[in-house]
Amino acid sequence: MNPQSGRTRDGILFTDQYQLTMAQLYFRKDLHERPAQFDYYFRRYPDYGRHQAGYAVAAGLDPLLEWMAEVRFTDRDLELLRGQRNSRGERRFDEPFLEWLSRNGTFDDVVIKAVPEGRVVHALAPSAIVQGPLGVIQILETSLLNHLNYPTLIATKASRIHEASAGRPSLEFGMRRGPAFGANAGGRAALIGGADFTSNVGVSHELGVDPKGTHAHSMVQVFMALGHGELEAFRAFAEVYPDDCILLVDTINTLKSGVPNAITVFEELRAAGHEPVGIRLDSGDLAYLSIEAAAMLDEAGFEDVDIVLSGNLDELEIWQIRAQILDESTRIDIDPRRIMNRLVYGVGTRLITSQGHEALDGVYKLVAIQDGDDWVPAIKVSDTPEKIPIPGQKKVWRLYDKRGRATADVVGVADEDFTDSEIKLYHPHREGVSRVIQRSDITEVEDLLVEVYRDGARTSPSPSLDTMRNRRTADLDRLDVGVRRLVNPHIYHVSLTEQMKRLQLRLIDEAKGR
Amino acid sequence: MNPQSGRTRDGILFTDQYQLTMAQLYFRKDLHERPAQFDYYFRRYPDYGRHQAGYAVAAGLDPLLEWMAEVRFTDRDLELLRGQRNSRGERRFDEPFLEWLSRNGTFDDVVIKAVPEGRVVHALAPSAIVQGPLGVIQILETSLLNHLNYPTLIATKASRIHEASAGRPSLEFGMRRGPAFGANAGGRAALIGGADFTSNVGVSHELGVDPKGTHAHSMVQVFMALGHGELEAFRAFAEVYPDDCILLVDTINTLKSGVPNAITVFEELRAAGHEPVGIRLDSGDLAYLSIEAAAMLDEAGFEDVDIVLSGNLDELEIWQIRAQILDESTRIDIDPRRIMNRLVYGVGTRLITSQGHEALDGVYKLVAIQDGDDWVPAIKVSDTPEKIPIPGQKKVWRLYDKRGRATADVVGVADEDFTDSEIKLYHPHREGVSRVIQRSDITEVEDLLVEVYRDGARTSPSPSLDTMRNRRTADLDRLDVGVRRLVNPHIYHVSLTEQMKRLQLRLIDEAKGR
Repeated sequence: MNPQSGRTRDGILFTDQYQLTMAQLYFRKDLHERPAQFDYYFRRYPDYGRHQAGYAVAAGLDPLLEWMAEVRFTDRDLELLRGQRNSRGERRFDEPFLEWLSRNGTFDDVVIKAVPEGRVVHALAPSAIVQGPLGVIQILETSLLNHLNYPTLIATKASRIHEASAGRPSLEFGMRRGPAFGANAGGRAALIGGADFTSNVGVSHELGVDPKGTHAHSMVQVFMALGHGELEAFRAFAEVYPDDCILLVDTINTLKSGVPNAITVFEELRAAGHEPVGIRLDSGDLAYLSIEAAAMLDEAGFEDVDIVLSGNLDELEIWQIRAQILDESTRIDIDPRRIMNRLVYGVGTRLITSQGHEALDGVYKLVAIQDGDDWVPAIKVSDTPEKIPIPGQKKVWRLYDKRGRATADVVGVADEDFTDSEIKLYHPHREGVSRVIQRSDITEVEDLLVEVYRDGARTSPSPSLDTMRNRRTADLDRLDVGVRRLVNPHIYHVSLTEQMKRLQLRLIDEAKGR
Repeated sequence: MNPQSGRTRDGILFTDQYQLTMAQLYFRKDLHERPAQFDYYFRRYPDYGRHQAGYAVAAGLDPLLEWMAEVRFTDRDLELLRGQRNSRGERRFDEPFLEWLSRNGTFDDVVIKAVPEGRVVHALAPSAIVQGPLGVIQILETSLLNHLNYPTLIATKASRIHEASAGRPSLEFGMRRGPAFGANAGGRAALIGGADFTSNVGVSHELGVDPKGTHAHSMVQVFMALGHGELEAFRAFAEVYPDDCILLVDTINTLKSGVPNAITVFEELRAAGHEPVGIRLDSGDLAYLSIEAAAMLDEAGFEDVDIVLSGNLDELEIWQIRAQILDESTRIDIDPRRIMNRLVYGVGTRLITSQGHEALDGVYKLVAIQDGDDWVPAIKVSDTPEKIPIPGQKKVWRLYDKRGRATADVVGVADEDFTDSEIKLYHPHREGVSRVIQRSDITEVEDLLVEVYRDGARTSPSPSLDTMRNRRTADLDRLDVGVRRLVNPHIYHVSLTEQMKRLQLRLIDEAKGR
């Protein structure tokens, strides 16, 4: 997405070395322009240790397509490759190959079908299929994986945090602990996946959402160092932001100093005709402090003031805070909903790093190559059955049941349809595991992959954030609640059709028989 | 580092919203140009769960300084900020503030002293101190943290992997699972921290190292799908790269197919006057397969061929592989060193994500502000003692003992020195913990922080990769082996001088007494 920077590292050389050496090999063997297909899919849902995802949210596609449309082998890139030397000191890449890269090393002849950003996607079902000249789509591998894996991981985490927040806003705050400029991709993915806002100014502006923030402890420290106190710091903030006043109350002592001072300033604000917005708690027992602070605010007549929580939050911590408030409410007889309905969750490090599951294991596998007029399906055998890909050209459908709920993602061969009254579905890699569903029980068969890239450009304009978010909420509404569960979710069915299963088994036999 | 891109998200708006709102508050209160000091330090070494770091390797500084030198508030940035609205629909940032940003919102008046990249750094001892106008260095916070935290985390992990590799090369392969374009910062940090090479083409060229790679399973798959086999794929690779021939032998069956086919091709290569370089194992029991493959290669007369290992490696996996080879060698009577000395470690996901400890908890804390002619030290109190910063203007020294080993990092007030015959050192936050060392036992007192940024530019040219690596190896040579240990390392001493301890305690008392 950064080709405008003119930096080598952000252009088409944002790839692994072996993609280039393989491309040259294909060039020498006259295979470089042979049409081929690679599929992108991930093998496992994120497993954070104590909690696990039952679905993922696709993200990262549009920045990938933008990057693909813009990059090419620049003169500088070619010069660098010309300078590479093998162990004998000879050139590693020869001139005819570099000339070909210079002329044809773009993604103009690549066609991508993919599941659009924001949609729910599942393990093993390809969410992008890439067709094009072998040499070119080989070079694309690394950047495609890089552009899709991390954002999908973060969008998935953001969706879980959104679920745990149960209708209350969540804010992405993680840039300072994020992975260098990758934090921008993380912020964008978080907004797609479920964060209502981010503190990241640049990304907010690019996506057209208001950037959010409160103030730091350092602001209070400045006033203290200069001989004033927390109250003066709060007053200054309220003076400059009378209609957006959220005060961080834990710099000195939350309940003895921060909340009382905030209430003083809120009273002054109200007297001047402004409504205060909230307080922020950034340390300590957040559930306990929320209850106590809420009582103090209520007592002072500020029932509608938000309580923004932050400090190592993730979906499980948010759950825990809500559970603790509920438990406590039965003990001291308060309405827990009145407290929960004023909470806002600021989520930082654990979102931007997907704490507990740091990388999506998305892969990009060769599944077909043209030979003469025919497409030949390709397979890779492995002793680990779940590593065997689904071969050949294919379609991916989502089936919906009578309740309108998604009941399975099904992978079939390219020219199949669902006209039979019985549909036999096979497990992608567990031998002999199959089930039969009645066509009449299926209310909708949705073709999941849509063409998104052709002739060197996106096939449709960049989607708005709202569009991507609406896709996510629509898909989640049609997902079984068991699959959405934050801990030990139900396993969503991803299956192969009978034709695809037969193809897979035949290719495995052939590969092993060689 | 990407300001040339012209993208909002990579310029000076690569920051958190609250930095801008605080800056405006300082502007309104006429505090914006008040000189202040923030310190950067991390609180805890990475703890990966089963293993822990006893030191860290500083990285990310030079890209930060480059970014700082280039960014400024562009007309587009100011226009976006002009467009921000508060909850009443009024402008959030007023014109006088934006005019000030436009004129003075650069880092030209900022001075940074820091520990240079590649050096060993320790928890709690500031590795960068930033002085400049309060409004400006507040805005810098997020980007500084982002630029330093992630690279330091990855350089630290790379150093541990280098230690575990015991002199054998390690290669960084993680781009595909890395955090979007943050993978570039990760690749660079890995090279500083201990990776000998990276597969990342762009970063390799920018840093002047040869990018490394072998080939993918897909190359073998292509040949298989077209009716050929693994042997033909290997032959093609050897033909194109006769002097750099490393063959991936696990596509079908490592010991029955891959290694025998590789040996056939190696024999053909040798007959043609070329020396084969290696094989790569990417799945299965890597220790067992290394022993078996080594025996087969020896038997065929290829004793010097490398064995590149990959697949979820990290420092502990490498340890485990080496331990297993050692155990096995006593059982079957082979020289384990002969096997270990041909191993090369390709490390991907677990390095680029710092698996197990995903974020360095580096912070940026206000420690001093000018008031009239004086600098006033600032503190932040907390119920968690390790969260209390070391206040005021300061120096950070490293003390070396008679063996030439680093024995402590010491933080003192700015005008101190070490002339007394006894030096009393205090724990940074544990009350009453102190020790006395004799000045005569200290052979060297090194001032760790050097001026790296002034007048809007680096004070010296960008360091070469070799320079940064040499700093690391020199520092590691002078570090106690117990501190370098991969599991349960000794705790390195970071201490305060008596003057600094007194200052800290006085400020805590004052803050709590308010």
